[in-house]
Amino acid sequence: MSQLHEYSDFKHFLVSSPSEYVAHVEINRPAKLNAFFEDMWVELGKVFDKLSCDPNVRAVVLSGAGDRAFTAGLDVKAASEGSIVSASAGDGARTATQMRRGVFEFQECITRVEKCEKPVICVLHGISYGLAIDVSSCADVRICSKDTKLSVKEVDIGLAADIGTLSRLPKVVGSFSWVKDVCMSARIFGADEALAVGFVSQVHESKAKSIEAAVNLATLLSSKSPVAVQGTKELLNHARENTVADSLRYTAIWNSAMLQSNDLKAAFMSSFQKTRPTFAKL
Amino acid sequence: MSQLHEYSDFKHFLVSSPSEYVAHVEINRPAKLNAFFEDMWVELGKVFDKLSCDPNVRAVVLSGAGDRAFTAGLDVKAASEGSIVSASAGDGARTATQMRRGVFEFQECITRVEKCEKPVICVLHGISYGLAIDVSSCADVRICSKDTKLSVKEVDIGLAADIGTLSRLPKVVGSFSWVKDVCMSARIFGADEALAVGFVSQVHESKAKSIEAAVNLATLLSSKSPVAVQGTKELLNHARENTVADSLRYTAIWNSAMLQSNDLKAAFMSSFQKTRPTFAKL
Amino acid sequence: MSQLHEYSDFKHFLVSSPSEYVAHVEINRPAKLNAFFEDMWVELGKVFDKLSCDPNVRAVVLSGAGDRAFTAGLDVKAASEGSIVSASAGDGARTATQMRRGVFEFQECITRVEKCEKPVICVLHGISYGLAIDVSSCADVRICSKDTKLSVKEVDIGLAADIGTLSRLPKVVGSFSWVKDVCMSARIFGADEALAVGFVSQVHESKAKSIEAAVNLATLLSSKSPVAVQGTKELLNHARENTVADSLRYTAIWNSAMLQSNDLKAAFMSSFQKTRPTFAKL
Amino acid sequence: MSQLHEYSDFKHFLVSSPSEYVAHVEINRPAKLNAFFEDMWVELGKVFDKLSCDPNVRAVVLSGAGDRAFTAGLDVKAASEGSIVSASAGDGARTATQMRRGVFEFQECITRVEKCEKPVICVLHGISYGLAIDVSSCADVRICSKDTKLSVKEVDIGLAADIGTLSRLPKVVGSFSWVKDVCMSARIFGADEALAVGFVSQVHESKAKSIEAAVNLATLLSSKSPVAVQGTKELLNHARENTVADSLRYTAIWNSAMLQSNDLKAAFMSSFQKTRPTFAKL
Amino acid sequence: MSQLHEYSDFKHFLVSSPSEYVAHVEINRPAKLNAFFEDMWVELGKVFDKLSCDPNVRAVVLSGAGDRAFTAGLDVKAASEGSIVSASAGDGARTATQMRRGVFEFQECITRVEKCEKPVICVLHGISYGLAIDVSSCADVRICSKDTKLSVKEVDIGLAADIGTLSRLPKVVGSFSWVKDVCMSARIFGADEALAVGFVSQVHESKAKSIEAAVNLATLLSSKSPVAVQGTKELLNHARENTVADSLRYTAIWNSAMLQSNDLKAAFMSSFQKTRPTFAKL
Amino acid sequence: MSQLHEYSDFKHFLVSSPSEYVAHVEINRPAKLNAFFEDMWVELGKVFDKLSCDPNVRAVVLSGAGDRAFTAGLDVKAASEGSIVSASAGDGARTATQMRRGVFEFQECITRVEKCEKPVICVLHGISYGLAIDVSSCADVRICSKDTKLSVKEVDIGLAADIGTLSRLPKVVGSFSWVKDVCMSARIFGADEALAVGFVSQVHESKAKSIEAAVNLATLLSSKSPVAVQGTKELLNHARENTVADSLRYTAIWNSAMLQSNDLKAAFMSSFQKTRPTFAKL
Repeated sequence: MSQLHEYSDFKHFLVSSPSEYVAHVEINRPAKLNAFFEDMWVELGKVFDKLSCDPNVRAVVLSGAGDRAFTAGLDVKAASEGSIVSASAGDGARTATQMRRGVFEFQECITRVEKCEKPVICVLHGISYGLAIDVSSCADVRICSKDTKLSVKEVDIGLAADIGTLSRLPKVVGSFSWVKDVCMSARIFGADEALAVGFVSQVHESKAKSIEAAVNLATLLSSKSPVAVQGTKELLNHARENTVADSLRYTAIWNSAMLQSNDLKAAFMSSFQKTRPTFAKL
Repeated sequence: MSQLHEYSDFKHFLVSSPSEYVAHVEINRPAKLNAFFEDMWVELGKVFDKLSCDPNVRAVVLSGAGDRAFTAGLDVKAASEGSIVSASAGDGARTATQMRRGVFEFQECITRVEKCEKPVICVLHGISYGLAIDVSSCADVRICSKDTKLSVKEVDIGLAADIGTLSRLPKVVGSFSWVKDVCMSARIFGADEALAVGFVSQVHESKAKSIEAAVNLATLLSSKSPVAVQGTKELLNHARENTVADSLRYTAIWNSAMLQSNDLKAAFMSSFQKTRPTFAKL
Repeated sequence: MSQLHEYSDFKHFLVSSPSEYVAHVEINRPAKLNAFFEDMWVELGKVFDKLSCDPNVRAVVLSGAGDRAFTAGLDVKAASEGSIVSASAGDGARTATQMRRGVFEFQECITRVEKCEKPVICVLHGISYGLAIDVSSCADVRICSKDTKLSVKEVDIGLAADIGTLSRLPKVVGSFSWVKDVCMSARIFGADEALAVGFVSQVHESKAKSIEAAVNLATLLSSKSPVAVQGTKELLNHARENTVADSLRYTAIWNSAMLQSNDLKAAFMSSFQKTRPTFAKL
Repeated sequence: MSQLHEYSDFKHFLVSSPSEYVAHVEINRPAKLNAFFEDMWVELGKVFDKLSCDPNVRAVVLSGAGDRAFTAGLDVKAASEGSIVSASAGDGARTATQMRRGVFEFQECITRVEKCEKPVICVLHGISYGLAIDVSSCADVRICSKDTKLSVKEVDIGLAADIGTLSRLPKVVGSFSWVKDVCMSARIFGADEALAVGFVSQVHESKAKSIEAAVNLATLLSSKSPVAVQGTKELLNHARENTVADSLRYTAIWNSAMLQSNDLKAAFMSSFQKTRPTFAKL
Repeated sequence: MSQLHEYSDFKHFLVSSPSEYVAHVEINRPAKLNAFFEDMWVELGKVFDKLSCDPNVRAVVLSGAGDRAFTAGLDVKAASEGSIVSASAGDGARTATQMRRGVFEFQECITRVEKCEKPVICVLHGISYGLAIDVSSCADVRICSKDTKLSVKEVDIGLAADIGTLSRLPKVVGSFSWVKDVCMSARIFGADEALAVGFVSQVHESKAKSIEAAVNLATLLSSKSPVAVQGTKELLNHARENTVADSLRYTAIWNSAMLQSNDLKAAFMSSFQKTRPTFAKL
Repeated sequence: MSQLHEYSDFKHFLVSSPSEYVAHVEINRPAKLNAFFEDMWVELGKVFDKLSCDPNVRAVVLSGAGDRAFTAGLDVKAASEGSIVSASAGDGARTATQMRRGVFEFQECITRVEKCEKPVICVLHGISYGLAIDVSSCADVRICSKDTKLSVKEVDIGLAADIGTLSRLPKVVGSFSWVKDVCMSARIFGADEALAVGFVSQVHESKAKSIEAAVNLATLLSSKSPVAVQGTKELLNHARENTVADSLRYTAIWNSAMLQSNDLKAAFMSSFQKTRPTFAKL
């Protein structure tokens, strides 16, 4: 599991390659429970932009460094000194304009995780508060360890979560009663509850086991046609927010180009010959 | 648990205050299993309009009076004498116009429960048929007692439910197969099934225990910043029906005003000082 | 359980009537695991168009013939000789145009199952791969037997599923993490998992028991007002893809005509008299 | 042209009947250029709610009383003493909440003009600023006199128009460049320009001639089937904001009830017999 | 201008070829002012389905046969004997179901004109009432002769137009005041008015001159890359009903296949060499 | 009219300040008719991003440098050597992926003109082909000189326009027949036609006069409350793509913050005192 050289300039994220075509991104501020400040979320966006078009990457695993936390969320101390809270001009409209721009920029960075063309498997573990939910809701598959403590924490610092949790959570789990409960109460919930409502789709004994499962899944996805896997991700994200009729139309347009691929032949032949197919980079 | 004086003029609903900032609304026609007639749903709308802007209320618990039923639904006998069924003019188009207006007005009243700015926790218990589902689907969190018997009853009286159940149920639980099953068959289902599919998020031994749990949750929510809690409700309701991109944009606009609040400072300080914060009325 | 005479001209589907007003459609190519080729999906569309307006049918059960499979999906061998794969003109845009038309036509056929005005109960059993998910996602209620092996298989033949699975699956189950997992990995999952996530709403010991349960449910639905049952189906399908406000409006318009029915009186009277109501054909 | 008795309790609006089935509503504060204060817009909503269901009304003409103005807009002096501007609590979020509620209530009143089931023909004349555009954009047909001076005035009092102009103007005229120009510059434009861009569809020499033309059109509409005319209004309003496919579907549902009318026969017969048809009230 | 052999089996439409790659479709019932009955609109759909995929056709001109009318609309006499009006079962809901199915089928036929992949230029002339507007609103470009008399006639036969006019007219012209006026009043308007509001984009002296202009435009379009022209039609139709963001996304997906075409090179080279490019069939 | 120092590093655009708070951006490649290559559109995005947040700018004028052209569009020669056309990998799906990414990036740059918070007035003059329409459709107000020659040129180089014209043109002018005509035929049209259909809202004798008019309008807008003007732009852009109901809701949320501004008082006072108000920077 070696560092990926092209990503070594990033300061707050470690990017390594546990297996061929798989990148493992770690939020790297374990001494502070991986709490985020502005530089970090700007960099997070850049990491995922790079992964999105990197032909050597076909699946991404995202976790926190260290054993204690995926992330404790926003570094409130840093934030209270930063631009968002200090914006204040004595004029409500002008302050609001500053706020709005700040929130938009913050949202944009987190959204890059969702827009990454490659599948993203997020491993939650330990303390996973606030921004942990915003970020992991952008991932495609969520896995967690037994010890995970999750919370949509924002209400407890006096605000409605505005970086993505409230926009995405109703679309990734089915029970709206549960979503309202955890978002309004800011209560901590555990791995079993997260599994029962479908927020995560696997729970494992430890962080190590969870990472292993995530890497296995990522490796499996990387062995398949990247045209097929990445198309599936895109079409599911589109389907989530469009009518069935619009989604079918979009799907047909998408595949009118994507079926013109050697991957179909390769996949087809190897399924007959019981061999492992090879696919060109994408 | 004293009656709330300002609500004592309502005839069909009891409104009391089990704890600070919490209002408990009871459908008050226990002798008739809390079955609804037109005056009642008009009043229901007014109760929730008043709660929505009442600065002394931060969370609402809704239940039925008496032990037998949350509500048995529409009082079919009263309805059959009332305006909706009697509308008939020998001309299909004119009858349809009367029908349409009647249904719109009925829907509007029930929708006020959803539009209430404060979080609403609905306690289902005993017989909970027809309108029970329409009304509770407007609430934010649903809790029920073990003895609850639920049914989307309308098909059994010859019509497709038109006051809200069919519009909201697909958005509050995840399994569309289950939604179709219970809505088309009108079969009775119990508390365990309601929990398993995510329609309710808690089940308790008895009505009393359920009310207690609901009041506890309402009290917890009332202790938090009302700016944060009510914003969370609004943003989740918006997110449910809009794309992620539109929801993020709306969220940023909303918070550009809502972050200009003393609640952030109060919440922040008390989380550091481990004290209980105080928030101005809203 | 006699063959339905009016449907005896169909070559690839058996249509029988296990009870009054119930039609049982069987995919009839058991020797080839009910795998589909072009003629079959064209015929599937025609069968459901006919059922949709057939006044003698009030509910439909759909299953595969034989014990081994609901359907193994696309007959890849047939497809590779057919129009879709052979389309190729040396010009990417022209090939794409052929592809697009082909996918649209294929989608249209499958969509007829969803557009059928009568409720459709799909019984999955044995091998249920690829097209099995596309088709069953169009049904209203899904039931399966314990031995069912399901898979969104398309990624394994090098493409993103484009006949409906990716468009509908996010709308029929709640956990988006699970949907992404099974659609990207193409892994096989069983009946228990399908039940846990809400893809199916019943699991039975065997195919025979599953068919029995489906026929029972279909018979129950057929005993109710067809105006009420079919309206419920239509309104739930509309609600799934529209805002609550639009759905309420549409519902009121729909019922302004549909409440002008003798079914209300019939249902009402028999509920008082504890008799079985009779409803005119629809 | 007699006063309509049932509307004589309204204080700020005169409602008379210039011909059978036609109501003429006049904003009645000519000494103050028909400028609006809160009581007036609340009453405006009530007038149009009443007209909407009044079986004796089939078309409405709306104008200002007196020769000088349709309306000069908001009575800024009254407003500056009223609830909207005075709302201020030292806390930005709480002030915003008051503002939001105030704007919603104001919008709701104006929207009643659009929601009125009967066609509304608005006659603009003289000074027609600010609220004049908000209100007339809710009407179905706009007519003006040569002397009309129009302006989207809000920018000149320091705010973006929030009562409807910005929401509706892009949907009632075609040139977005023109819409942006007049809304951002707040410049005054005249009758000819309003006609050229399609904001009004007729211009007449004087206010009197304009009223006459409006009454003639209203009388013509009132001679036709109210089922047909009111349906046309509803379906065009729906079409404006929905896709063609959704609009076609909604139209078919709407007409499935509305074609069950004696009006078709009456209209049909009289077109053959060259007689004037009579239609039942609606 | 020879008949197109492959279209000679159609009974109610003449299809000829005035120039290479251009088809001219004439509604062929001049003795009855080209009034439509059910067989005709079913056939209309089939004609345009065939044109849509015909590689020898790149642009379509649609007009009426004879000098008196494009079409006088629905043949009311035929209709009154046909299925739509005669549907009546004594039960409002069942009658509504028949109506709904009938309207859907009728709409579907007319919509084929819009769905035709090739550009359609409609020449209106003489009497152009009712269905004339429904059909021509599906075309891409509208041209008319000076003598054209147009009317959205449906209100005069007691119904709101339900075959497409109300759904499409607000999207093809800019002035909503004008749309409401002509749709509610059913008044006749002429060529100059149609041009002024943008319903047609050319007016010519006579039907013959109009046909000539339409054929010239069709011939021009046929000389260009069919990939480019047909893509432009599709993308504009999509843009009309989607947000700019969704339209941009769809456009990029569409062109990701459509830019892989020899047409770019051919167009590019001939623009340099001032020669006429040749494009492969589509 | 001095150069704006902060913008002097841009290579392909001149940015000067003809009056207080007004920025004039010129496309600066007159020797090549201001034709665009990749570096230029990337820079265009950056210029407008900077203007969007620049507190010293309240309105922007955009034109081409030199007398001959606003822009002749894409520099086809440069493009044919660049990344988009050269993308080709022998695999249709992989080529499509490169294409899609390229088109997205190109679109993103042009969209920044629309997203600029400040009003943008575009002056078209001389040759204005292809990209000229894409870019100017992003502006708020369009003005042109008499000599302007416009064309949606893309069809003539073998493709459907994909950088914004097809997405925005149907939303900035009313006549869809005209839009289809010019987009499919690629014909050149002049200033008068552009004015008649509402694409531009002013035509002036010369480029100089047009610039003068644009600067005057920009100066007028800059003298008004920036909170009001910029809010108006944002709300109109939102209204264009949302239902009236959604737009009203968004407007109320927006103004709940934006009414908390000193600009209202300043505007109010100076309208009483007939003085020129001063507004703080935004």
